Parts: sequence; C-alpha cells; structure tokens
Amino acid sequence: MPDAKQPVLHLDESGLRPGLRLAVGVSGGADSVALIRALAERRRELGLVLSVVHLHHGLRGDEADADLEFVRTLAGDLGLSFQSERVETAASAAADPATGKAAETIEEAARRLRYQWFRRLMAGGAAEAVATAHTRDDQAETVLAKFLRGAWTEGLSGIHPVIEFPEGRILRLLLRTTRAEIEAYLTGLGQGWREDSSNRHLTFTRNRIRHELLPQLESWNPRLREHLAQMAELARDEESWWTEETARAAAPVVLPGRPVRGGGRAAAEGLALDIGRLTGLGPALQRRVLRYAAEQLGFALNFEATEGLRALALSGRASQRIELAGGLRGERTHRELRLSAQSSAAEGGNAAEVTFPVPGEVSAPELGIHLRIEAAVGTTATLRPWRAGDRVHLRHSSGPRKVKEVLERMKVSGTARSAWPVVEMDGRIVWMQGVAVEPGPEAQVTVLPGRAAPG
Amino acid sequence: MPDAKQPVLHLDESGLRPGLRLAVGVSGGADSVALIRALAERRRELGLVLSVVHLHHGLRGDEADADLEFVRTLAGDLGLSFQSERVETAASAAADPATGKAAETIEEAARRLRYQWFRRLMAGGAAEAVATAHTRDDQAETVLAKFLRGAWTEGLSGIHPVIEFPEGRILRLLLRTTRAEIEAYLTGLGQGWREDSSNRHLTFTRNRIRHELLPQLESWNPRLREHLAQMAELARDEESWWTEETARAAAPVVLPGRPVRGGGRAAAEGLALDIGRLTGLGPALQRRVLRYAAEQLGFALNFEATEGLRALALSGRASQRIELAGGLRGERTHRELRLSAQSSAAEGGNAAEVTFPVPGEVSAPELGIHLRIEAAVGTTATLRPWRAGDRVHLRHSSGPRKVKEVLERMKVSGTARSAWPVVEMDGRIVWMQGVAVEPGPEAQVTVLPGRAAPG
Repeated sequence: MPDAKQPVLHLDESGLRPGLRLAVGVSGGADSVALIRALAERRRELGLVLSVVHLHHGLRGDEADADLEFVRTLAGDLGLSFQSERVETAASAAADPATGKAAETIEEAARRLRYQWFRRLMAGGAAEAVATAHTRDDQAETVLAKFLRGAWTEGLSGIHPVIEFPEGRILRLLLRTTRAEIEAYLTGLGQGWREDSSNRHLTFTRNRIRHELLPQLESWNPRLREHLAQMAELARDEESWWTEETARAAAPVVLPGRPVRGGGRAAAEGLALDIGRLTGLGPALQRRVLRYAAEQLGFALNFEATEGLRALALSGRASQRIELAGGLRGERTHRELRLSAQSSAAEGGNAAEVTFPVPGEVSAPELGIHLRIEAAVGTTATLRPWRAGDRVHLRHSSGPRKVKEVLERMKVSGTARSAWPVVEMDGRIVWMQGVAVEPGPEAQVTVLPGRAAPG
Repeated sequence: MPDAKQPVLHLDESGLRPGLRLAVGVSGGADSVALIRALAERRRELGLVLSVVHLHHGLRGDEADADLEFVRTLAGDLGLSFQSERVETAASAAADPATGKAAETIEEAARRLRYQWFRRLMAGGAAEAVATAHTRDDQAETVLAKFLRGAWTEGLSGIHPVIEFPEGRILRLLLRTTRAEIEAYLTGLGQGWREDSSNRHLTFTRNRIRHELLPQLESWNPRLREHLAQMAELARDEESWWTEETARAAAPVVLPGRPVRGGGRAAAEGLALDIGRLTGLGPALQRRVLRYAAEQLGFALNFEATEGLRALALSGRASQRIELAGGLRGERTHRELRLSAQSSAAEGGNAAEVTFPVPGEVSAPELGIHLRIEAAVGTTATLRPWRAGDRVHLRHSSGPRKVKEVLERMKVSGTARSAWPVVEMDGRIVWMQGVAVEPGPEAQVTVLPGRAAPG
C-alpha cells in the first residue's frame, strides 16, 4: 500500500475534454466530496473549468444547513466558484390537483428537483455539463432492484454514464469506482465528509437492497457488485443497438391510420401493424416492434401484454380483440393488428378491472380515486369492484373480515355497493374505499388527492 | 376449484405433431410422472406415438431399483412400451487418464449419460424425440444461478424448450408449468410418485438456490419465479437474434491467416479482425464479434478479456499484445487484431499465472496438476507460484501459516521452492501442492488424476 504517495481515484474521463465548463453536484457526502477532490486535483491536466453546485432540499433543518456550509467551505478551500439553491422538496412531492401533478416519494421529488436545477444551470450558461457522483455500488443496487422486478435489457442497463439533455449533459464519472475505494481515497487525503443522511430518504426497497440483500448475495459471489456493473454496461450497449434496430425494423411494419379500399390509408386514431411483415421478423424483434408501437400511443407493455398482442397478431382471427391495462386495445383485422387507446370513460364506469405495476399509481377520476402503492419489490395490483368472498384486514383490528359485512356495517347499498372498489395485490385486499385497511407488512398504500377529472 | 372434473396440466405443444414417435424420460419423480400422465391422457388427441424410457444411474441401490419398477409398472398401466438401461454413473464421473477425460460431479455425469442414452435411442430409431420434464421452477433456479454468476443474454436464456441433435430433438414440455401445479395435478388424479432423491445429488449451489435463496427472494417479489422464466424466454429469443446478427456482422471482419504484400492472405495460425470494420460496428456488436472470433479458436471470453481485446483493437498501437487466460494471445498490427492460441509449453513452464472460472478445472500437465474447484457460486481462481507473504490454512490446523514456513518444514528448496504452485481464490489460498489445505467453507477443491501429457 502506498503510504507517502498521493492517493488516486479513478475517473471515467471519456466525457471530459479541455475547456469543458463542468459543474459538480456536491451534497457533502463521501461520494461527491471524493469526486470534487479528484477533479480539482486534476483540473489543470484535464483542462476543466470547474465549479461546485449544491442543492439544499429544504428537508433536514440544521443538518442540511451545515451540509451547505461544509460544501461552500470545501469549494472555497479548493478555489472553486460555488452556487447553491434551496427548494422545498416535501411540498413539491405532494400532489397538485390544480395542475394534475401526481404525488411522489421524497426521493423521487428530490431527484426531479435536482435535475431540474442542473438543467436550469446549464440553460443559463453556468456550465456545459454537470457531474454527479453515482458509484459502482449505486449501479449494482440499481441493477439488482431491476432484476428482482423482472426487467430485461433496458431495465438492466441501470444508471447511464451520460444523459443528454437539450441544455447539456449529466456525467457520471464514478460508475466504475466502489464506495470502499472512495472512502479509502478520502481517508488517504485526510479529507472529511458529511455523513450522508439521505440514506434515511431512500425507499424501503433501496435501503433493504443496500444494507441487507447485496451484502448477503456476496456470500454467493464475492464479485457480484462488479458483475452487476458489467451487466449494466453490456445491457446498455445492447439496448442501444436494439433501439436502432427496432426503429429500422418498425418502419415498414408500423403504419398510421387504417387502409381504404383501392389502396392508401385514411386518418384514424391509433396505428396498425402489418401482420405479414411482423411475422417475418423473429420473436425478439416482434416483441420489440410491438412495444415500440405501443410506446407511440403512450403505453409501456409488460411481458404478458406483449405476448398477448403477439399471439393475437400471429394466430388471431379477424375481429378478435384484446383489452389491456390502461385502456390499450388490440384488434385483429385480416391483414393488420390495430392498436388504439380507449378512454376509460368509454369503457362504462368502474366495472372493469385495472391492473397496474407496483410500486405505482392508479387513478380513477370518475370515482375520485387516486392511490399510490409501494411494496417490498414490485409486482402488480388490481383496482376492481369487490367480489363475494373477499376478505379484508382492517387497521387496528385482528383477523380478516368479510367485505360484504364491512359494507353492511357501513350501510352501503344498491349500485354503490355492487361496484364498491377495492385494490387487490397478491390475493390480499390492500385498499378498500372508505375504510382503513391494513395492507400487510410488505406493502404501503397512500391515498392521494384525486386528480382533476379531465375537461 | 373443479372437484368432479378431470385435472389438467398445461403442456407446451409447439414441438408436437401427429405421428411423432415420442419417448418420455421418466425418473419416477413428480415432474416426469405428471408429464407422462398428461401426455398419455392426450395421446389420441395429439396423435402421438408414446413410449416410456428410464435410465438407472446405478447410484442409489434398492431405492433406484424400486424407481425402475415403479416406472415400468406405470408404463404398463398406461399401455405404453417401456425401455430402460443401467449405467454406472459414479465410475463414469471419475477422470480417465487414458482418454484424457476430466472428472465430473455426479450430477454432471448423470446428465451426460442420460443425454448420451437419449441420443442413442433416437439414433437407433426407438424414437424421433425425447421429452424431459423440466419445470418453470427448474428454469427460475437456472436463471438465478446464472445471474449470480454474472452472465449476460446467453447465460440468462436458461433451459431451452427444444435442443436439436443430429439424431433428433429433446423437448421440454413443462417449462411453463410450476412444481406446485404438477403436485396438484397428480394429487387430483390420485397418481403417486417416487420422492425424487436426486435432490441429494444436486450441487451445493443448486440446492441452496432451490431451498434457501429463491424462497427468500420471493419475499421481495412474489412473482419472481415467473419473472425469471420470462427473462429466460426474452433472453433466448434475443440471443437467437444476436447469433444470426453476429455471424452476418463478423463475415467481413474476421479474416483467416495474415495479409501478404501485394494483397491477398497467406495461411497462418489463428485469425485476424479488420480494425477499420470492427470500429464501425458499435460496442455491443464489437463485443459479440470478438467473442465469436475467439470461439472459433476454442476460447470463451469473459467480460474483462473481451474488453481487454476491444481496447487493444480500438486504441492499441501496432505490435502491442495481450496474453489471456488459457493461452489466447491478441496482437495488434497496423490494421488488424490477430488472435492466436499459444500452447502453454511455449510459455516457459509454470511461472505464468493461469486464471480460470470457478466452478471449473485447471490442468498443468507439465506439473502433473489437475484440479477441480467448486464454490458456492462462481468467481475465478488463479493457479500461480507462491509469493512472499502468502498464508495458507492447513486442514486440521487452527489459524493460517506462512507458505514460506510450510515449504521449509517440507524441506523444499531451490527452483522447486521458488515455483511451488498454489491456487488462490478471492485472496485465499485454496490449494497448495503437497499439503492438505482447508479451502474455506464455501469452496471445495478436488485433486484429479493428472491428465496424460500431450504427445
């Protein structure tokens, strides 16, 4: 081990060039302090014009004020210009019925506000790019979370080293550096850091993955974090290939409007896929092209929905249909698979079930329902009318009760009673309109202010 | 739940056609008993010519004899022809210096013998295809094991539903069926099965994944098995796309021999990649084409080796070289990356380190060393001469000792001493020539009879 030598931290330099005006997002935690120290150390060699930026999230009172002062002092010591701004994350996380904004977790809102600010800084000319300090450990956690949720190539590509915005680029220069290397680097420099209490704001899932699951899985493969980071790199490059390939393959398959007699196409809602051409593509590209087409209508297809549409396209009969979550309809004609978005109002009230991914939100404005459901790790939940035999665990009550009896006690009758909405997840009622339900140890349901009804 | 109704088991019928002569491999365990019952039930409808085959692995004495009789009786009850054979798995698993055959685990040998027999049956005309009873749970375990080892698309494709051999096809008809569905089906039929004690022959890793890790990860995602099986399907189809795409892309890039003045190429060992064309491909396809080229020389590149070669190709200078595990050499010329296999004898004895994947084998015939290393889940190990500072845990001894002192006690001196071989895994010496080493709780080292030296 070097003792007299200067410690070194590996930076991904591929996005750097002499003259680049680079703002570094520094929270005061070990990762970002190491990043700014390493960049400052090499700023002449790399020819960078560095500055330090710090967003005060308005969350942790004195502690956050002290973080701000710590970072301001650090920037001063390094001779770097410093800029900070304060936002009110908690207020910003809440739903806003006036604008239709959905509620977010604190973590989601903090991230959104941070990136909005970075983009404003770049738009205002304060910097051309912003560097953030995501590490290989962050990458491994992200990939593992996606894997447990059942993602494929796109999801497993994890945290990207560069994000391009119209205003400039976000660069992650530490994605190949471990948290252990960062702490060793700072210790070697005698450089302190603020204990990053943002851990407390991590989601339940992310916290468990970081502190429980990843350490445990390392007993299976001591190099797991490294392998997960490699997977992310492979997935990212393969996804980039697929994106181009899919667009190329989709061009002759995905058609606007609908065909008219005598040739040509007339304007119509939705779009259509040419069955003959789709069939010629092979399963992997068929799936990609179907997802690409649905994306154009604003839908993200999961595995089952993709396979349902694929089966309809490849072996369906003319006039067969499939109705998918969120109001996507697939309809088979003689030569085409037509995709269109159905407005839920046209579907006839709330009698239909809506299945949605968890963590996620479901909104039924006609019923004034807007819920957010989080769970240990994602699965799906279904918003539906209650059925005979349904049982529900009421909060502060031992044992399940029949929904039927709960409704009787509530004196709900008639149509309202027959259509009374519940949310089911993995066979358990995790929410029921009008009562406090115990959603189970692994799930959490947040009732949000209803979104304004459209129109 | 149907009570009077006949229970139904979902079969993947895509590989079946009327008239197919299908042998079903039946061990007597629940999975294969369910498979033969479901196929027998529907043989007329599907038009199959069914038979039952059973391999006695010569492993479990009376218990295996009873399995054989159980399956023979079941076949008779179903009116199906029956064929069985007996092999001696344990003896077959051992290494054979005469032929150079490496030692295998019992599980590996059993699988090899089973598939060899299936292929002989098909070659002899007893059947056109053989059906085996792998379930969705087997699929999930396989994908998870590969994921923990750090595999990408190819590895994550798991168990394939169809394997084509020159003699015929192996069909896995239950890959979408869960073990729970199988037991419910058999219970519904009143059909018994033999408790499949082959669990005992599962590797340490597979057993832990089945009984410990998968159940635990389901607390993160209750639908994890289903999602893993979906990943396998996505990965398989994408891998099939990549295989074609890679061969197409490699054709103009991978060149035989070496260029000669005035144009054309002369015969030479190894092969070359055209740098200009490789550069034009984009990272995902560059990696695929590099791995494809190495495969033609008999090498399977891991992530680091692929990236090492890619860096040499994209940014190396003429005459730069890279030496990879197993004796693959990459050499940069002005316009090409040359790949060639170096014989280890030419490398100058055992001074070089050999890094190899775990579980796996390493063979150094010149030293009479042939080892197999298994571990909880794969990583890599390195065969190398000991170094000053190395410490080793001897079996039946508490605490580590210096290798230097162990060699002194063994009175090893001179050249032999300086080159004394050890195997290191994750910073621990798991094997050392001439002494019994405690390889640690998670690893197991088997010394195999040395392979016959070549020639």
